[in-house]
Amino acid sequence: MSFPLEWSRLQDATVTALEERLPPASEPPAKLHEAMRYATLNGGKRFRAVLLMMTGQMFGTGLERLMAPAAAVECVHAYSLVHDDLPCMDDDDYRRGMPSCHKQYDEATAVLVGDALQAFAFQILSSDESLVNLKDKSGRLVSILAGAIGSKGMTGGQALDIEFEINGVSTIDPFSVNRLKTAKLIQASVCLGACVSDAVTEQEYRVLSDYGECVGLAFQYRDDQLDDDALEDNPHEKASTMRDRALSAIRTLDRDTQNLEKLAEFVVSRSM
Amino acid sequence: MSFPLEWSRLQDATVTALEERLPPASEPPAKLHEAMRYATLNGGKRFRAVLLMMTGQMFGTGLERLMAPAAAVECVHAYSLVHDDLPCMDDDDYRRGMPSCHKQYDEATAVLVGDALQAFAFQILSSDESLVNLKDKSGRLVSILAGAIGSKGMTGGQALDIEFEINGVSTIDPFSVNRLKTAKLIQASVCLGACVSDAVTEQEYRVLSDYGECVGLAFQYRDDQLDDDALEDNPHEKASTMRDRALSAIRTLDRDTQNLEKLAEFVVSRSM
Repeated sequence: MSFPLEWSRLQDATVTALEERLPPASEPPAKLHEAMRYATLNGGKRFRAVLLMMTGQMFGTGLERLMAPAAAVECVHAYSLVHDDLPCMDDDDYRRGMPSCHKQYDEATAVLVGDALQAFAFQILSSDESLVNLKDKSGRLVSILAGAIGSKGMTGGQALDIEFEINGVSTIDPFSVNRLKTAKLIQASVCLGACVSDAVTEQEYRVLSDYGECVGLAFQYRDDQLDDDALEDNPHEKASTMRDRALSAIRTLDRDTQNLEKLAEFVVSRSM
Repeated sequence: MSFPLEWSRLQDATVTALEERLPPASEPPAKLHEAMRYATLNGGKRFRAVLLMMTGQMFGTGLERLMAPAAAVECVHAYSLVHDDLPCMDDDDYRRGMPSCHKQYDEATAVLVGDALQAFAFQILSSDESLVNLKDKSGRLVSILAGAIGSKGMTGGQALDIEFEINGVSTIDPFSVNRLKTAKLIQASVCLGACVSDAVTEQEYRVLSDYGECVGLAFQYRDDQLDDDALEDNPHEKASTMRDRALSAIRTLDRDTQNLEKLAEFVVSRSM
């Protein structure tokens, strides 16, 4: 199952949002700017951005308000891939069929690209023109994203993953690794889409947060299954279980949840 | 000239603020948390934190409101040192007489420590309990810090520095390197101290921003002089010029500027 065609408009909008916001490669530091664009504008499903936008759209929030947080999430995702690919991490020479950032440029540039993209995501969330009317929510948006990156989020999951690989079956819980490494940022994408939407109630926010976590876990289990490289047993079964939980959660909402249901289905049936 | 004894209370307060906020090493991911603490609680002058706090104190802002932004700035400074020391960057085995982070742990952990500390700084600025009454300013605080880190700030300066080292005397302006690499975060420290202070006027903010940039440049020139490793000629003269500009700026304020004047003097006469 590939990414449905009807979503391509949102993917295109994400790319446009990134292109418009990222500093031009003609401006110094030119090499860093070129590498930042290389790392973010290199294709990809834009799954997190689409998830964020579809969450917001469910509450009637216009795309013009969803573009900035969508771009921020994709910047964070791109930074994590650049640092993941480094020789001292996963040592991957290719990313989406192209040389990874440190192969195309150099390791020092790749470290700086990741650092700058993280900062740029927070720059967008705190001062993008499209979000000026959300000033009082800016702190919450930043807190959601920072929590998803920090040691109780993505970086924590990667650290546990490294410990796990070194120690094998040890005291480290593989569920925690999956939850932190992948699910947190996906969950944050849903939460950001909800947070910028004025119509969301606290109860709906909690449901969406649960939905996001389940979709994130399903995403990681499906990855494990596709890569045949699972930290946990039976990734297929677990992915299905998480999809079911995501669907149960989202269906409790009195909203048009069709798109978010499709996204949960996509996650466990995708081949990429 | 060493750091004046009277400032040691602010340095101690900074260390306490970091110790209290950083996740405990007993909590998983334990190794990452231990390494985050190793990288931030390893001494250092806490110059940026002291500068931030003294700026706030000049406006009557209490320490309880200055601790969180001070801790955030020190987290960013610590992250930048950890990434700077990496083999692919400056390849430094020691930092303040101790093994640098990647020597004490490993390279992968050092990359993650830097990433997690950056995120943690934004987590503090957006959701520290001491800042809850500043909610409407949270976006501005985040924007100041993100701008100081991003490609028009610290990471941009480091990228230019690398290009400069490769190309030697080239099209790259060494003044830009110094301004971005070092001065931006020092300037941001002053701006954060001003921004959290309710009493500050827009005019005073602009003066402090200029003061901060001059102090930051003076700091870098003094470093160049101490290391005998200058990008620009006559670092001693340039440091003095920047100190004079910082003093001229700050003396236009109708406030007790004594401490900020002493800090500007300290910067150009320090031996560490």
